[in-house]
Amino acid sequence: MGVVVQTIPRADPDIVKALGDCGVATVHEAQGRTGLLASYMRPIYSGAKVGASAVTILAPPGDNWMLHVAIEQLTPGDILVLATTSPSDAGYFGDLLATSAKARGCLGLVIDAGVRDVADLTEMGFPVWSKAVCAQGTVKETIGSVNVPIVCAGAMVTPGDIVVADDDGVCVVRREDGERVLAKARDRLAKEDDKRARLAAGELGLDLYNMRRRLAEKGLKYV
Amino acid sequence: MGVVVQTIPRADPDIVKALGDCGVATVHEAQGRTGLLASYMRPIYSGAKVGASAVTILAPPGDNWMLHVAIEQLTPGDILVLATTSPSDAGYFGDLLATSAKARGCLGLVIDAGVRDVADLTEMGFPVWSKAVCAQGTVKETIGSVNVPIVCAGAMVTPGDIVVADDDGVCVVRREDGERVLAKARDRLAKEDDKRARLAAGELGLDLYNMRRRLAEKGLKYV
Amino acid sequence: MGVVVQTIPRADPDIVKALGDCGVATVHEAQGRTGLLASYMRPIYSGAKVGASAVTILAPPGDNWMLHVAIEQLTPGDILVLATTSPSDAGYFGDLLATSAKARGCLGLVIDAGVRDVADLTEMGFPVWSKAVCAQGTVKETIGSVNVPIVCAGAMVTPGDIVVADDDGVCVVRREDGERVLAKARDRLAKEDDKRARLAAGELGLDLYNMRRRLAEKGLKYV
Amino acid sequence: MGVVVQTIPRADPDIVKALGDCGVATVHEAQGRTGLLASYMRPIYSGAKVGASAVTILAPPGDNWMLHVAIEQLTPGDILVLATTSPSDAGYFGDLLATSAKARGCLGLVIDAGVRDVADLTEMGFPVWSKAVCAQGTVKETIGSVNVPIVCAGAMVTPGDIVVADDDGVCVVRREDGERVLAKARDRLAKEDDKRARLAAGELGLDLYNMRRRLAEKGLKYV
Amino acid sequence: MGVVVQTIPRADPDIVKALGDCGVATVHEAQGRTGLLASYMRPIYSGAKVGASAVTILAPPGDNWMLHVAIEQLTPGDILVLATTSPSDAGYFGDLLATSAKARGCLGLVIDAGVRDVADLTEMGFPVWSKAVCAQGTVKETIGSVNVPIVCAGAMVTPGDIVVADDDGVCVVRREDGERVLAKARDRLAKEDDKRARLAAGELGLDLYNMRRRLAEKGLKYV
Amino acid sequence: MGVVVQTIPRADPDIVKALGDCGVATVHEAQGRTGLLASYMRPIYSGAKVGASAVTILAPPGDNWMLHVAIEQLTPGDILVLATTSPSDAGYFGDLLATSAKARGCLGLVIDAGVRDVADLTEMGFPVWSKAVCAQGTVKETIGSVNVPIVCAGAMVTPGDIVVADDDGVCVVRREDGERVLAKARDRLAKEDDKRARLAAGELGLDLYNMRRRLAEKGLKYV
Repeated sequence: MGVVVQTIPRADPDIVKALGDCGVATVHEAQGRTGLLASYMRPIYSGAKVGASAVTILAPPGDNWMLHVAIEQLTPGDILVLATTSPSDAGYFGDLLATSAKARGCLGLVIDAGVRDVADLTEMGFPVWSKAVCAQGTVKETIGSVNVPIVCAGAMVTPGDIVVADDDGVCVVRREDGERVLAKARDRLAKEDDKRARLAAGELGLDLYNMRRRLAEKGLKYV
Repeated sequence: MGVVVQTIPRADPDIVKALGDCGVATVHEAQGRTGLLASYMRPIYSGAKVGASAVTILAPPGDNWMLHVAIEQLTPGDILVLATTSPSDAGYFGDLLATSAKARGCLGLVIDAGVRDVADLTEMGFPVWSKAVCAQGTVKETIGSVNVPIVCAGAMVTPGDIVVADDDGVCVVRREDGERVLAKARDRLAKEDDKRARLAAGELGLDLYNMRRRLAEKGLKYV
Repeated sequence: MGVVVQTIPRADPDIVKALGDCGVATVHEAQGRTGLLASYMRPIYSGAKVGASAVTILAPPGDNWMLHVAIEQLTPGDILVLATTSPSDAGYFGDLLATSAKARGCLGLVIDAGVRDVADLTEMGFPVWSKAVCAQGTVKETIGSVNVPIVCAGAMVTPGDIVVADDDGVCVVRREDGERVLAKARDRLAKEDDKRARLAAGELGLDLYNMRRRLAEKGLKYV
Repeated sequence: MGVVVQTIPRADPDIVKALGDCGVATVHEAQGRTGLLASYMRPIYSGAKVGASAVTILAPPGDNWMLHVAIEQLTPGDILVLATTSPSDAGYFGDLLATSAKARGCLGLVIDAGVRDVADLTEMGFPVWSKAVCAQGTVKETIGSVNVPIVCAGAMVTPGDIVVADDDGVCVVRREDGERVLAKARDRLAKEDDKRARLAAGELGLDLYNMRRRLAEKGLKYV
Repeated sequence: MGVVVQTIPRADPDIVKALGDCGVATVHEAQGRTGLLASYMRPIYSGAKVGASAVTILAPPGDNWMLHVAIEQLTPGDILVLATTSPSDAGYFGDLLATSAKARGCLGLVIDAGVRDVADLTEMGFPVWSKAVCAQGTVKETIGSVNVPIVCAGAMVTPGDIVVADDDGVCVVRREDGERVLAKARDRLAKEDDKRARLAAGELGLDLYNMRRRLAEKGLKYV
Repeated sequence: MGVVVQTIPRADPDIVKALGDCGVATVHEAQGRTGLLASYMRPIYSGAKVGASAVTILAPPGDNWMLHVAIEQLTPGDILVLATTSPSDAGYFGDLLATSAKARGCLGLVIDAGVRDVADLTEMGFPVWSKAVCAQGTVKETIGSVNVPIVCAGAMVTPGDIVVADDDGVCVVRREDGERVLAKARDRLAKEDDKRARLAAGELGLDLYNMRRRLAEKGLKYV
């Protein structure tokens, strides 16, 4: 504890942004169904869609001091990702911190704890994915760390990892896997366009995916 | 397990639709306060209001194969109702399945598990009531059943039952009770109009419902 | 149990309204981080912001009789605050009760239980902060009390206390503390304007709040 | 609501008892993995193991009146199974009701709500599987039903069904399936004895169940 | 915050002890079903039964400093009752604090947070009712208060109040109500002995409590 | 997915065992309050205390196939640590698997999912720390991995890491930190003996830890 790593590698910004455009469900599938944060992580407003590089924070329960420290480490295109050393629903983050983070080019916050001033954050267009909305204030008494590997909402996040977040939740892509995962995600999306058209035209998934024989083999009976 | 019932009785479409227009709270009251699904079943967007006939699915945890099977059994005016054999928050359903279901005239999904692609589903106007929003993918390895009686979010649902769903949640009406419940629901609504006007004019419920004497008998003291 | 207190002191309406305008997070800070209700208390729609005087209700589980009793005790500018004697998610309150309460000048409801007809309440602009949305009806069999001190969602509420509620949740200010807390809240807001401007201009919280030396003393290491 | 069915069919007592001896996990497997109640149903003490015929109760939230009604319907070898019409953690059942039930030959209680006097119940050896332990009292104001089909903790229970309960939870066997399920359960237990001996001797499940080839086909890589 | 009240009134020790002997369920009933803490407060081991005077603590999340302060305020026959200003599951209390508290005559701990060293505490016979068992350590950075009124697990506790705790949970009796509640509790227990004997002999609650006529009036039908 | 790592480094068995003897709370403190699994991980019986080397499993939801694969990788002194790719409460593990694991010298199981046959496991003295007890069976359809890094109940676990588990929960020590953490843990325990004696003799923590001056500086007021 008590370490701030000032230099972290980040992925190619174009890849990061493109992954964000693909969306969480597609990216999660494209990388073999790993990296998803727990489903209790919900956006404070609908419609946000982000791809960004993780600046990580490990913070004590009910203590948001490290957020101030982390903001100095932000570069444009980053997203703050905060885990706590012990569970907390307190409101670590509000509109002043968002103003400061936004001024540094930060694209949002992923926090396994609480957030407040959500009406202001919504108006600012600063997206947050959190475990709770809670006005409870925090203290600045105990140090934590910035840009160390963390476990956030059940997922491992390394500084510089690519965070994809939208209304479906949050998914993390290893920095070095960005290009490979993007290629697969785009491939999925391309194939989905064709599938979507055929399904919309009334073709059944049972036929499109050739499922009937295997279902019969498994013993499915039509009565 | 492993059965698909291809022919199920459905209620009169006009009754089904009319029950949907009455709304969950009214229908639930009209049928004697039964048939309500657990309150953790929440809509993915506000404002949807549906009356539809249930095509039921019993699916293994984290396995959405039976959704493909069930879609073939849909007729216009149906709603998919999925229960799992063991609890799961995984994202069983997304925009491709919704496209396919919608092409068959399906009006929505009630799922005691997770859903994903919620931004797309919202844009499509395909309503879902679910336990969770979760991007986690599912497999297609184990068969379940379609159009068998299920217990979904604590309520018994028989294929062909009438599902009423809106922002208040989800309620199930036995197929054969549709006409009777509709009559009672309409009766309630008619009476509510009068009550609403009197309450809006400042009359108290205490007087409107003649509660004062009974409250006094129960021992209520004004000080 | 079984008592209705008909005369309660209320705070100066201008102070009550002004506290509502300050918002939950600011008021909670201004009064020393006390009075916050549990974070599971969520608004049924976004954007509501209220300052109001509490008319309190202690109700049995699944029994909404006392709401009718409480409505008679409302004066314009009040908010209903309901706690139960045993946990319940049932839908105690809907559009008819809201119509009646609104006719008496009531500004909203805070309820550590469930609410229904949320689409109607949203359309009426009658805000509710609740533990659940649930269509389940309630009975009128057992009396409770109105305008007695209650514990609602973990916070003590005395009749006439000032309730501040917005998208961040609900906070209670002791009636006699209203003026003092308002002064502090306004002071905070005034200072925040300056801070917000400096943070937006790129100044760091680390410098604005003079944190660097104390962080170093606590042992924070930059690497 | 408001019905007491006085005559219900029950399964052969020897079969009921024998199923209890097989235990929940075995019986659940033997009947194709159906009938299990939610895992939040926990015994108030360890070591109880019961097979019994269900006398079902559908009770309002926080109202235990129907338990008194149900006790009259008990015959030796029965178990009370209580579901509520709306969730409740209140303490519906304590040592006096247990004394009365025990005097009628009742073997225990399965309750999707709360129980109290657990120290006394433990001393009496009267097992209870419940959602909560809670001293909160209940009222006797609203009627429910006895010996109607219910959904308890997510499982359908019909009066006279066979309830198997132990430290692993609670499972329900349809009355008419008792003999068939018992045969399968005994078959499983017999085979398990052999397996247990071979596994205890160091043989691997991979070999005992011939898993290696199928794992390889699925793509499992040893490195 | 930041206040230690050194002199608090306490109830007559004989009354406090006698209330403990009556048990939670009986005391809760005897005082009109008030004062019960939430049912998530569970004992770390079975069989403890305590009546004691509350020394209250209001502590920050994850900060156990005030426990040390509170221990100095203990007199024999007291119990520590800790609430947090924001929810926390951290392990505030372990065997060293228990050793210290026990040396001052403390009879146990009620804590709306976590506890650790539960094996040692069990061996010491020092009972704890808590929200969680959790080894997570706490800090000593932020002050709170001792012997101020608190809301603990949903119940108001004033210093010197009588705490009754056993396997059913925790109930608080206002200090000044002790004698009155004890009389009622003993009266209940005396009547229960007679009822228990009659119920054990096979008499039904339906008859013992004269319920049949009222059930019929409510519309209960036997079929 | 789909990888079994057959050779993993393990720590010195004496160190592993000694850490187990120190207990979770002490080890967690000794290594700077890291490595603790979420507090919902509870032992199936009280009194177990283990230090062991982690053989890790990443398993699909409701699929226990990889447990069979993992058992072959066990050496005496190991403990199985299972995480799922998506949350599941299903009963992955029972007495047959325990028999097999025990035959390989396995000391227990840590599973972020469900376990069954807990009465048998208790009788066998095979300790399990789990999220749930649940009889629900699992399938063997989808492969996962063995001895890869996992996130289990919020903590990172690398194969060969040292797992310490007792009634307080579960803590993970990096394999390479074993010796260093053990030294600190022993140092803590040695100092605690002295503290315990002084506290038992009535000395206050306020004096023993020299807290009075710092409390006064923080503004604590005695009244």
